[in-house]
Amino acid sequence: MPPNYAAPSRLLARWENFCLLTNRTRPRRCPCQQISRPAALRNSFHSQASPKSKPRVQWATLASRSAVLVGLAIGSLQLFNETPSDRSHKKTTDSKIKTFRLAEVRQHDGSSQNPWVIRGTSVYDITDWIAAHPGGDVILTAAGGSLEPFWDIFTIHKRPDVYEILEEYKIGVIDEADLQDGRVPQGAILDPFQNDPERDARLITLTACPRNAETPRDGLKDFITSNELFYVRNHFWVPAVKGEDHEINIEMVDGTERTYTVKELKERFPRHKITTTLQCAGNRRKSMTDAAGTTKGLQWKAGAISTAEWEGVRLVDVLADAGLSLDQLPDDAQHVQFSAMEAYGASIPIRKAIDPWGDVLLAFSMNGVELPRDHGYPVRVIVPGTVAARSVKWLSQITISPDESPTQWQQRDYKSFCPSEVNNPRWERARSIQEMPVTSAITHVEVPRKDEGNGLGTILAEGYAYSGGGREIIRVDVSADGGRTWHEAELLDDRARVKGNRAWCWKRWRYRGPMPDDRTDSVSKCTRLVVKATDEAYNTQPQTHESIFNARGNLATAWDCAEVSSVTADT
Amino acid sequence: MPPNYAAPSRLLARWENFCLLTNRTRPRRCPCQQISRPAALRNSFHSQASPKSKPRVQWATLASRSAVLVGLAIGSLQLFNETPSDRSHKKTTDSKIKTFRLAEVRQHDGSSQNPWVIRGTSVYDITDWIAAHPGGDVILTAAGGSLEPFWDIFTIHKRPDVYEILEEYKIGVIDEADLQDGRVPQGAILDPFQNDPERDARLITLTACPRNAETPRDGLKDFITSNELFYVRNHFWVPAVKGEDHEINIEMVDGTERTYTVKELKERFPRHKITTTLQCAGNRRKSMTDAAGTTKGLQWKAGAISTAEWEGVRLVDVLADAGLSLDQLPDDAQHVQFSAMEAYGASIPIRKAIDPWGDVLLAFSMNGVELPRDHGYPVRVIVPGTVAARSVKWLSQITISPDESPTQWQQRDYKSFCPSEVNNPRWERARSIQEMPVTSAITHVEVPRKDEGNGLGTILAEGYAYSGGGREIIRVDVSADGGRTWHEAELLDDRARVKGNRAWCWKRWRYRGPMPDDRTDSVSKCTRLVVKATDEAYNTQPQTHESIFNARGNLATAWDCAEVSSVTADT
Repeated sequence: MPPNYAAPSRLLARWENFCLLTNRTRPRRCPCQQISRPAALRNSFHSQASPKSKPRVQWATLASRSAVLVGLAIGSLQLFNETPSDRSHKKTTDSKIKTFRLAEVRQHDGSSQNPWVIRGTSVYDITDWIAAHPGGDVILTAAGGSLEPFWDIFTIHKRPDVYEILEEYKIGVIDEADLQDGRVPQGAILDPFQNDPERDARLITLTACPRNAETPRDGLKDFITSNELFYVRNHFWVPAVKGEDHEINIEMVDGTERTYTVKELKERFPRHKITTTLQCAGNRRKSMTDAAGTTKGLQWKAGAISTAEWEGVRLVDVLADAGLSLDQLPDDAQHVQFSAMEAYGASIPIRKAIDPWGDVLLAFSMNGVELPRDHGYPVRVIVPGTVAARSVKWLSQITISPDESPTQWQQRDYKSFCPSEVNNPRWERARSIQEMPVTSAITHVEVPRKDEGNGLGTILAEGYAYSGGGREIIRVDVSADGGRTWHEAELLDDRARVKGNRAWCWKRWRYRGPMPDDRTDSVSKCTRLVVKATDEAYNTQPQTHESIFNARGNLATAWDCAEVSSVTADT
Repeated sequence: MPPNYAAPSRLLARWENFCLLTNRTRPRRCPCQQISRPAALRNSFHSQASPKSKPRVQWATLASRSAVLVGLAIGSLQLFNETPSDRSHKKTTDSKIKTFRLAEVRQHDGSSQNPWVIRGTSVYDITDWIAAHPGGDVILTAAGGSLEPFWDIFTIHKRPDVYEILEEYKIGVIDEADLQDGRVPQGAILDPFQNDPERDARLITLTACPRNAETPRDGLKDFITSNELFYVRNHFWVPAVKGEDHEINIEMVDGTERTYTVKELKERFPRHKITTTLQCAGNRRKSMTDAAGTTKGLQWKAGAISTAEWEGVRLVDVLADAGLSLDQLPDDAQHVQFSAMEAYGASIPIRKAIDPWGDVLLAFSMNGVELPRDHGYPVRVIVPGTVAARSVKWLSQITISPDESPTQWQQRDYKSFCPSEVNNPRWERARSIQEMPVTSAITHVEVPRKDEGNGLGTILAEGYAYSGGGREIIRVDVSADGGRTWHEAELLDDRARVKGNRAWCWKRWRYRGPMPDDRTDSVSKCTRLVVKATDEAYNTQPQTHESIFNARGNLATAWDCAEVSSVTADT
C-alpha cells in the first residue's frame, strides 16, 4: 500500500502551531533557509510571534511558500549533476546511545507527534527541527524511514554543516539485528519513487528518478499525442492519492478557504474539453547547448512538447464558487498560486485565470480517459498557451495572492536572461516565463533520393511549430540553403484553433523541395535545412541560440536546423 | 466653407437603389472593378437583381465593401511611385457639343440626382457610371468639380482605357468664358486636400498629399508624444465634419442599425482614458529597404510610432447598447469593421473588440484636448496593441460581420509574406496584421568621447522598444560589437503598464557602455551598435531583415543597428 503523503499545508501548519504552543526555542537553521527568499516568507516567521493576533500571512500561503525553500533546496541544477550513488556514511561508533528497531522507527512517521528519520544507521528525532524548517512538510514524507533518498533529490542538504545540524537531533542508532552488512537494508528504506507508475518504453528517458522523458518521433508526428507517448516532466516522485476523495483547498486573499473534493468538482461544475499543446520551457535546450555552450538543466531535444485533449472544469468557475468576485477583483488578487502534493508549486497571473477565453482547466481526464498518474492524477491544472511548468499536476492547493508563487520554479528556474548574465543571472529581476514565444522544430528528414527532383534529390522534412498565448501559427518557412532563400512549408493542422477559441495547439508542417545545386558544403554534399515559424502576431524566431543564450538554457527557440546529406543517396 | 462629404454608405446605397429602380443596363466597368476582390462583394451585385427579396448583403456592409475597390483602385504602391503632376489633357475639339458654365457644373455635386464631373475641360454626367462603380461614393466627392485631384490619388484610373470609358459619359465642355489659358483655373477645381489642417514644421514629411509625416527625434525621446509631434498617417484628405452632430452608424449582423451622434456617445457612455502607443506596420521600413532590397510603401525611418493618452468611450459599451449580445455572441459576429468618412476602412476580430481588457475606445480626445483633425476629429477608433491601421480615424460606420473588412487595407496592404513571395505575394492567403510583433529602435547615439571610459570613449545610446497585444517589454539588450556580446539597457518607463491593464505602451531605453577595444572595423574606427528587445512572452526580434523580407516592407522588426565611430571623438 502506498504511503499516505498528507497535504503539506496541513502538516506544516500543524508543526508551526506545535512550535508556537510549546514555545520551543528555534533550533539551528537548515541551509536551505539561508538561500535568498521572498520577504513575505521571512516575515511569516515573525508574524507567528504573537499567536493571538490574526496571522498576517495566510496559513495556506505559508504552506505554499514553504515550497520555495524546498525548491531552492533542490538545486535542480545539482540534481542532474550529482550522482545519486553517494549513499555510504560513516558508521556511528558511539556505543552509549540507544538502539531502536526499524519497526519502532516506522511508527514515528509523518502522522506521528514525534517524527524520526534515519540517516546511515543513525536515528534522529526531528520534531524540533521541523518547526524551523519551512521544507518541513517534505521532510515529513521521509519520517519513519531514511532521509537519504530525499536528500538525493534535495541535494543541497548533502553538506557537512547540514550533517552537523542533524547530529544535534540524534537519539540513537538502528539495532544491529536490523542491519545487513552493517547497513539498513535497501528494502527497509522508503524509496519515494517506489510507487511511480510503469511507463512506455518508447519514451526517451532523460532521468528515471524523477522521471523525465521526451516524446519520440512516433509521438510527434500526430496532432494528438497518445497518453503513453506524452512527454513526462516530473520534479519529484508521483504522489499516491485518494482519487475522488482527494481534496483541493482554495484560499482567497482575505484568508477565507474553501475545500473541494475531486468528486465535488466533477459533480458541481460544468465540464469543458480543451485541446492544447503543452511545452516545457527547456524544450530544444540541447540545441542551444550544442550551438552556444553549456546550459544547466535537462538536455531535451525537440520532444518536450505534446498535445492532448483535456477534460475538466474551468478554474474561473471554481474560483467564483469559492468566493472570488470576478466583477470586483480585490486589488491584491494578482496571482493564482498552485501547489502540488509532492512539493512543486507555480503560479499564473489572475488575468489568465479568469479570462473568459483563457480556458484554464482543473482537468481530470486526458484524451478521453482518467488522467494517468504521471500526468497529474487525480487532478491537475491545464493552462493553455502558457509554459507547461504552470500546469501544476497533483493539485492540492490554490491560493489567490498579491504575489507570484514563491517557489524556485516561479522565482528562478523558469526564466530567461540577457546573454551577458550567463554566469550570474539576476533571478529576481527576470520575468518568470508565462506565455511561450514562437518556436518550431524539424522532427524528421528523409535522405534525398537522386532519382527525384533536380537529379540531386528531393528533400522531405516534417516538424511542428507552436506559439504561446493562443497565437496561431500562420506560416512556417523552410530554407534548404541555411537561410539564404526561403519556401513556405505546408501546414497540416486545421485543428490548431477550434472555432471561437484561441489557438492553443501546435501545427505540424511538411516540406518537400529539391536538394539545392549550390550546397553549402560541396565536399560533404551536405546542405543546412533551416526552419522558422511565424505566429499571428507576426512574431518569428530568433536566428541563433547565441543571441538568446541564457544560463538556464530556457526557451531555446532559435531557427531549428538539420544537416541534410545526399551522400547516402548515392549508395 | 468646406464641402459636405456625405457618409459614403448612404450615398452608395442610394445610387445602387437608383440603378435597380431605373433598371438601367450596367455600363462598362471601371478598371478598378477588374481587380481581384472578395467573393462577398462580387455576390453583392447579384443579390441586387431581385429587389423584392431581402438583400442577402447588408447595405452598410455593401457600402463598406465598396471601399475595397476604392482601396484596390488606389494602388497605394503607385500612389508613391507616380508624380501628381500629370495634369495636362488633350483639349476637346468637338465644336458641336454643349458648353456649360462652371457654376452650373457645381450644382451637379454629390447631393444631385445627376452628378457631373470635369476632366480637363470636358464635362461628364456620371450618373450611370456610378451605379456600376463600387467606388462610386468616392467619385461623388468629386462631383460638381474636377476628377483629376482624386485620380491623382486613385492613380489606377489614369489609363487610356479609363479615359475611353469616361468619354462615353461626356455631355459637353466648359464654356470658354470660364477658362484661363484654355484650362479650368486651379482655384475653380476642388482640391480635396485644400482643407487639410496646418501641421507642425518639425514633423518629417514623407508625402504632403495625403499627409504622411514621422515623429522627429524630439518627439521620440518622451514617453508621451505631443499632439503636434505625433506621427501622421493619412491615406486621403482630412475630412471636414460636423463635430458633435457627426453620426456614427452601427450595423449588426442581422442588419439592424443604430446611429449615434458624437454628442450622444459622449453623454450616454462612461468615459475612459487609455494611454497607448500606436505604430504603423511600415515603421522602420527604410531599414528593411536599406538592408534587404526595394520595398513598396512609404519609407518610414523609426518615427512612425508615437504614444498618447486617449479619452473616449469603450467600443464594447457602445456595441452592447446598439444590441450586440456579449453573453451570446451570434456565430457570424466575427469581425468589427470600421469605415472612415474619406474612404478608408479596416476591421478587428470581435474578440479584441469586446475583450473586457481589450481597451478598444471610440476616442474624442488626445492628450487632454479635442482630437486634432489629423488624428481623427471628431471621433476615431483606438485599438491598443494592434497595428495602427485598425485605429480608424474620422469614424462613420461600424459593421459587425462574419468577414474582415473587404478594403485593400485589410485584404492586402497590411500583411506580410514569406521572403520567397517578394514578386508575387499571395495576398489572400496571408494573415492581416493585427497584434504587432516585438520591435525596438535606436533613436539617438552620442559620439564617444575619448576622455571617458576605456580611453576609446563611452557610447551613449537611446531608443524605444514596443510589442503588441499588451505584451510588456521586459528587456532590451544592446551590443556594441555587432551582436557578439550583449548588455542589458536601462528601461526608463514604468508607465508602460498601468496597474491592472495590459501593457499598451512602448518603453524607452538608455545604454551607456565603452567603445569596444576590438571594433569590428579597425580602419574606420567604427563599431556596430545593435539593439533587440524581448517582451513578456519572451518573443524577441529577428536578427536580419533578409529573413523577414516581404514585398510590402511591413513589420521591419529586425535588430536595429547604428554605426558608431570614434573618429570624430579624436578631433
